[in-house]
Amino acid sequence: MPISPGGMSVFFRSIEWSHSFCRSRLFSSQPSKSSWFWNRRALLLLAAGSGGLMVLADAALSQELNPAEGSDKDLNKKKVLVLGTGWAGTSFLKNLDCSKYNVQVVSPRNYFAFTPLLPSVTCGTVEARSISEPIRKIVKRKEEDVSFWEAECSEIDSKQKKIFCCSNIDNSKDKENFALDYDYLIIAVGAKSNTFNTPGVDKYCHFLKEVEDAQRIRGSIVDCFERGSLPHLSNEERERILHFVVVGGGPTGIEFAAELHDFIHDDLLKLYPSLKEFVKITVVQSGDHILNMFDQRISDFAENKFQRDGIEIKTGCRVVEVTDKYINMKEKQSGATLSISYGMIVWSTGIGTRPVISQFMKQIGQTDRRVLATDEWLRVKGCDDVYALGDCATIEQRKIMEDISYIFKIADKDNSGTLTVKEFKDVIEDIRMRYPQIDLYLEREHMKNAAKLLEGTAENAHGQTIQLNIEQFKTAISRVDSQMKALPATAQVAAQQGTYLARCFNRMDISAAEPEGPLRFTGTGRHRFRPFLYKHLGQFAPLGGEQTAAQLPGDWVSIGHSSQWLWYSVYASKQVSWRTRVLVVFDWTKRVIFGRDSSGM
Amino acid sequence: MPISPGGMSVFFRSIEWSHSFCRSRLFSSQPSKSSWFWNRRALLLLAAGSGGLMVLADAALSQELNPAEGSDKDLNKKKVLVLGTGWAGTSFLKNLDCSKYNVQVVSPRNYFAFTPLLPSVTCGTVEARSISEPIRKIVKRKEEDVSFWEAECSEIDSKQKKIFCCSNIDNSKDKENFALDYDYLIIAVGAKSNTFNTPGVDKYCHFLKEVEDAQRIRGSIVDCFERGSLPHLSNEERERILHFVVVGGGPTGIEFAAELHDFIHDDLLKLYPSLKEFVKITVVQSGDHILNMFDQRISDFAENKFQRDGIEIKTGCRVVEVTDKYINMKEKQSGATLSISYGMIVWSTGIGTRPVISQFMKQIGQTDRRVLATDEWLRVKGCDDVYALGDCATIEQRKIMEDISYIFKIADKDNSGTLTVKEFKDVIEDIRMRYPQIDLYLEREHMKNAAKLLEGTAENAHGQTIQLNIEQFKTAISRVDSQMKALPATAQVAAQQGTYLARCFNRMDISAAEPEGPLRFTGTGRHRFRPFLYKHLGQFAPLGGEQTAAQLPGDWVSIGHSSQWLWYSVYASKQVSWRTRVLVVFDWTKRVIFGRDSSGM
Repeated sequence: MPISPGGMSVFFRSIEWSHSFCRSRLFSSQPSKSSWFWNRRALLLLAAGSGGLMVLADAALSQELNPAEGSDKDLNKKKVLVLGTGWAGTSFLKNLDCSKYNVQVVSPRNYFAFTPLLPSVTCGTVEARSISEPIRKIVKRKEEDVSFWEAECSEIDSKQKKIFCCSNIDNSKDKENFALDYDYLIIAVGAKSNTFNTPGVDKYCHFLKEVEDAQRIRGSIVDCFERGSLPHLSNEERERILHFVVVGGGPTGIEFAAELHDFIHDDLLKLYPSLKEFVKITVVQSGDHILNMFDQRISDFAENKFQRDGIEIKTGCRVVEVTDKYINMKEKQSGATLSISYGMIVWSTGIGTRPVISQFMKQIGQTDRRVLATDEWLRVKGCDDVYALGDCATIEQRKIMEDISYIFKIADKDNSGTLTVKEFKDVIEDIRMRYPQIDLYLEREHMKNAAKLLEGTAENAHGQTIQLNIEQFKTAISRVDSQMKALPATAQVAAQQGTYLARCFNRMDISAAEPEGPLRFTGTGRHRFRPFLYKHLGQFAPLGGEQTAAQLPGDWVSIGHSSQWLWYSVYASKQVSWRTRVLVVFDWTKRVIFGRDSSGM
Repeated sequence: MPISPGGMSVFFRSIEWSHSFCRSRLFSSQPSKSSWFWNRRALLLLAAGSGGLMVLADAALSQELNPAEGSDKDLNKKKVLVLGTGWAGTSFLKNLDCSKYNVQVVSPRNYFAFTPLLPSVTCGTVEARSISEPIRKIVKRKEEDVSFWEAECSEIDSKQKKIFCCSNIDNSKDKENFALDYDYLIIAVGAKSNTFNTPGVDKYCHFLKEVEDAQRIRGSIVDCFERGSLPHLSNEERERILHFVVVGGGPTGIEFAAELHDFIHDDLLKLYPSLKEFVKITVVQSGDHILNMFDQRISDFAENKFQRDGIEIKTGCRVVEVTDKYINMKEKQSGATLSISYGMIVWSTGIGTRPVISQFMKQIGQTDRRVLATDEWLRVKGCDDVYALGDCATIEQRKIMEDISYIFKIADKDNSGTLTVKEFKDVIEDIRMRYPQIDLYLEREHMKNAAKLLEGTAENAHGQTIQLNIEQFKTAISRVDSQMKALPATAQVAAQQGTYLARCFNRMDISAAEPEGPLRFTGTGRHRFRPFLYKHLGQFAPLGGEQTAAQLPGDWVSIGHSSQWLWYSVYASKQVSWRTRVLVVFDWTKRVIFGRDSSGM
């Protein structure tokens, strides 16, 4: 195991105060009431024994900024309105040069949550507040005027360039409705859980999308143990109450099941030892394997580990109904129905559309879709100045075959009606930029450069690699579009899209004069920006017992304790603020020392 | 200020791992899955720079104990049933020798909460889970078989020696009702907030009795700031939303007001700077002063500090009604009514009776009371084998004048009809033990010993201090009962009562043979136990801005930063477990570095 007592000793010994690293601006403001303690302008150096993890207390927090409201906004600046404070919205805000726009943010949550750690929150391995950072703190660090409204966007009117909001504060006695107008609208509202309209799911199941969901699940797990402890229950009833069912074998569901197993076996059964024989965890998966978006080796490892841990996996089963005590399922292969009793269900089967997105899609004619379709620059199709990113949107990558004649025409500079390899090479960079599926195809086919695409066809035609006519060119390119696939609905995609879009907005003025995008094959000139290109950095699947499966770029697979440490390092480093970073690391340490808390609150 | 950056540096540097201090039993159990990390059997030495505070990871947690249920209970043991897991119940359980009884605990909360820190939880200075410890962990450390049921006691039947319970788990689809019988019943269910039947209070006000209350208040404060930030509000509306009203000028209300002021000025206004002019805190107090149970100096200091902080104090006002936006009050002196608008109210005006206690009091004929009356041994009057302690009970101290003839008779050993000082001295110890008001009287009158009581009267009668007849004795003693007063409803009283009662239960068998109590003046022989005697250790009133007022025994008053440090030390040391102690200290440190979190969850 990577943590050793000695290592932890180093870890703690090296928690040190120092101000030698403080940024110079920390000392530039006027002294305040609590100046005795540098008004929190302090540097906290937290060097982990094994990882040398450095944690720096976020000094910027003490910086006084302009108020979000009531300040003199520059009315000449364009209004950018951001909907949502999830991964996409927050990453956009963090990277946007807010001095160039009047920025407004609308979200029903006034904080950003590090959602990949939500499964850890369900069992108290990490506290909810340790993964949450107020959005006002995040935008305040930008030292620019950004307005935030805690409200739900109820309607988008892209013709009037207006949105309608409703303040969703629970204990508000007056529902506050208001409208905001925009020049650019950034839709990043995310998605809701998808129940596939299965009866009873909304009423009886827990979801795992929001921080509040995770908190409710945490309370509910402890409640099940308390309920299962009550006197005068039959053994059947105890078994039912302590049957935890996870519907969905994706990363979230599997991580939750693994966390729950650890919580039960590391902590709960020590306090409720008599319940050991009654506890059971079942994962229901409609596909043939759990974690089927991962490499087969990971999927197999996870299934074997779960089997050893006593977690039952029911694959090939579709839930058809949930009642107060039973889940009714259909076995896909045999068509047989089966019914199992449960104490608690966590439903994690993918994402569905938020009402405001459904309404907006209807308005702009994008019907029969689950998410908003955008072009490769994240612009909503059929809609000016509206951008959509993250889980509420998908990029409709243009097929190269749709534009093949235009491409041929532009590439064939001498209008000879044939394309030489030289001519093709002159435009290949633009083609690759505009149609990223080419690179995916080249990679899959192990081709070193795009010119290789032509070789086979040209050789077939002439035995030489000189020239192709339009039909030969079409044949050469025809298979490329097969590699097109929608990006997964992950935090990683959303964050990269936010960063990308912010960069486009930051360079809006420059790019008008100096477009940096590829050639417009179906028009003239160049696109202002390169299209969005997703760079997959890998994915983790924590499997419990300090073991994690990691699938890194290049199909590099790593499973075990070392990946767990990689997971710790990556998740700590990706935290949105130094506060959350320190808290998450503290929570992990606290879990190791004291275990997880089982107070039912 | 006592914390200096250097001091904190020492604080962090000295967080060290060491196993040299481990208790020997830590290494005695069998190795487990996580033995690489000593199965959490580690020692954490946290030496605070200023206080040398030592924090020891609670090793006992890893000790496997008998299951609470399903084990072979010794049926010959008497059944002790404890209702409640607050200060009284938990302190009783912690001190009880559980090997002597079959112990069962019923409480709607499966954890003990360190309630004096609840006002800190309302503003996030301390996290809710940092002050809560699962009751199962607390009883597990006793290494004896204790059953816990998370349920609400709905009825006590002292004739049948039975209680009826109802499992109160929120998301339970089946309400579980069950009955338990007992040989001894310990009622420690505490109290609920007292609304004095003021209309609207239950509907519109927050209380501050439970951890959940504090969490709701925390969310509500942030909601008010988000609501007050919304666009298109009038200034009046913003002022209303950001008007925080505290009803009740006792320690809880005042501490909350002080915490709220700090939260707003240290943290919230940095994120919501434009709201500064609209925020207001008002304390409404029916008496003439706030903190009127404290020394006048503390009360004055608090009023002056609040005035400087801009917290308005409305004394001599009684709330007559609360509506959705207004509090209607009556000025006691002038009789004038006034109405103020508010955004949020915290109601903290004292304690009321829980329904189960009202029902039980009716059953045993204790009507027209707010709390259960017990004798000096905490036994409920008129009820065998039922004990009540904490906020749900009060000790009805027997007046010495009721028993004066019996006392005279017993003291007058030679039946001479007169009492000599010598005769009086022979029984004075028993009298003082049985009637503790004597000591209070002696202290107030600065008398060195009880014999002095007789002197005045005897001298008046004869000019000599030789003998008193019954009438003279009555006159001598007559003023003693004036010092009787009910104990305050504080954690300190409840905890001492729990410890006292546990000790009585632990010595039940010994005391039958060797009674240790005072003489029975109205009967024969001795009482088995000394009556409960409360020892007041002092009280704190944190006033915000790192200043605390402390009233210590002997009317020693201390106000300021040094008392704040005393407060930190006492509250850290009084934590129920090492886990909560570490967490509370971490929370305080976290607050200093990162401020309080304002995520609205």
